[in-house]
Amino acid sequence: MKASKDLVIGIDIGGTNTVFGMVNRDGKIISRGTISTSAFSEVEKYIDHLYDAIKPEIEKAGGVEMFSGIGIGAPNGNYYKGTIEYAPNLKWQKGIIPFAEMMEKKFGLPSFLTNDANAAAVGEMKYGAAKNMKDFIMITLGTGVGSGIVANGAVIYGHDGFAGEMGHMTVLPGGRKHWSTGAYGPLEAYASATGVRLTAIEFLGAGKYPDSLLEKYTNEAINSKLIYECAEKGDALCREVFRITGEILGLALANAVMFSSPEAIFLFGGLCEAGDLLMKPVKESMEKNLIPVFQNKVQLIFSELKQSDAAILGASALAW
Amino acid sequence: MKASKDLVIGIDIGGTNTVFGMVNRDGKIISRGTISTSAFSEVEKYIDHLYDAIKPEIEKAGGVEMFSGIGIGAPNGNYYKGTIEYAPNLKWQKGIIPFAEMMEKKFGLPSFLTNDANAAAVGEMKYGAAKNMKDFIMITLGTGVGSGIVANGAVIYGHDGFAGEMGHMTVLPGGRKHWSTGAYGPLEAYASATGVRLTAIEFLGAGKYPDSLLEKYTNEAINSKLIYECAEKGDALCREVFRITGEILGLALANAVMFSSPEAIFLFGGLCEAGDLLMKPVKESMEKNLIPVFQNKVQLIFSELKQSDAAILGASALAW
Repeated sequence: MKASKDLVIGIDIGGTNTVFGMVNRDGKIISRGTISTSAFSEVEKYIDHLYDAIKPEIEKAGGVEMFSGIGIGAPNGNYYKGTIEYAPNLKWQKGIIPFAEMMEKKFGLPSFLTNDANAAAVGEMKYGAAKNMKDFIMITLGTGVGSGIVANGAVIYGHDGFAGEMGHMTVLPGGRKHWSTGAYGPLEAYASATGVRLTAIEFLGAGKYPDSLLEKYTNEAINSKLIYECAEKGDALCREVFRITGEILGLALANAVMFSSPEAIFLFGGLCEAGDLLMKPVKESMEKNLIPVFQNKVQLIFSELKQSDAAILGASALAW
Repeated sequence: MKASKDLVIGIDIGGTNTVFGMVNRDGKIISRGTISTSAFSEVEKYIDHLYDAIKPEIEKAGGVEMFSGIGIGAPNGNYYKGTIEYAPNLKWQKGIIPFAEMMEKKFGLPSFLTNDANAAAVGEMKYGAAKNMKDFIMITLGTGVGSGIVANGAVIYGHDGFAGEMGHMTVLPGGRKHWSTGAYGPLEAYASATGVRLTAIEFLGAGKYPDSLLEKYTNEAINSKLIYECAEKGDALCREVFRITGEILGLALANAVMFSSPEAIFLFGGLCEAGDLLMKPVKESMEKNLIPVFQNKVQLIFSELKQSDAAILGASALAW
């Protein structure tokens, strides 16, 4: 009996967690799982652990013969070379890692890799609200900020496979120092979960909001989820954190619009849970920073796909 | 006898001047001319004047039957609709001008239009150093700052035909107010001929360079050419103008690189006469503002095409 190879594995590597899923030809995720990314300081151990987590799912599906390949979304992932290069948010990153090759050896399946946000963009294009769009941008707001840019119906990988690193674009020159690149004022330093946390801690330190609900937490206990929950309860400091985050993100999005003029920008990732608290100031700031020819034209929307699905599905699409 | 239609007219509309040329199928400009753009406050009068200037060239070439069409590069030119919309640098701009249609009526030739910098990019791709490139950016540094972005081998027009307005991207939030858009800190406010002049006048006002050669000129007499000439003579103020201009432009280019990861960025237009005075600080600043994965990879070069040729040739290519 010939193996059907009707499945692929989609893997999304985030700075904190890695999610994976077994995906069929209809784009249905038939099983899924998650492991920590940041718990490992060596890539070999990370891959071993990933293999241990995925192996039972492969067996359940009928063995490795049932799979066409593995598609991977990773920060600083190189589509052309299958490498992860100098990714500032991965603890096990050292120089240039031939990640697709290592996965291929470990799993015995052809493996393909791209930027995690490019993968999410492909997912949105194949299975989400971008189905009929030729020009759009996917922004991932997680531990870091990623972006996948589609123009003329194709993902822009650039000459070297690394295009779409909007999180590292300088948005406030001379601004906050990025915790790992050392750059001053990049978008990621503000509009990521990490950035939101730092903004809240800065506000606490400035002492302008002595009644903030955050005052009873240690800095270590403060994270973007807590800030969102307190903002929902009406906490002024936390609401101001989202307002200023939105203002900065909106400025960066306006710049992106004047560059590639997308039909839509999709926001995706953990920070999107903040909903209107984030969306409202982002939209206001984006429109304010556009010249008239671009105003009131761009759809700014949350991704239609479930939190982890877009990246898994997008990554998986690489493997067909 | 059937007319050969072996010629097209390429027209490049700049904020100050308009250049045009009769171009043959080999990409040779067989005759050329120039008229003022800024001398006209009504588009009808501008087109009348353009017609009067071009008509004798058409007659010399054997009449309108010899031409396939007209290709036009214009600021805020819409490739899809043939319109010029809300162009802040054109004195005769009012709302949305159906420019290609008006030209078609006046000249009796099919007319096509795009952003002037997109036209220059097409020129560089067809006839210049970008012949074998799939991913590059053309930056035009004239009265304003324009850009043409090529990715995956195609010009990015965006969903609405307006992509590539890098001059209006905010580079220093809260910075210098743009003379016509009113935006604070866009690239064009600094890295254009207009911006360079304003920077010099600011420096003069601050009184830090009492020995500057510019001190003997009125503000009205100061322009980017004079600033360049004085910088060449070693004038410290003028050299500092180019240094800071380069620093700001380099920051914006680094952002563009992290967005679309081009193989090369071409600088084009009047400001490029400053040569190394501009190029050196631009390159330094660009590299400094890139994360490592992008460093020392992008060719930053002056366009190979003659000053006015790229735009004329690129515009003309639209008409074949």
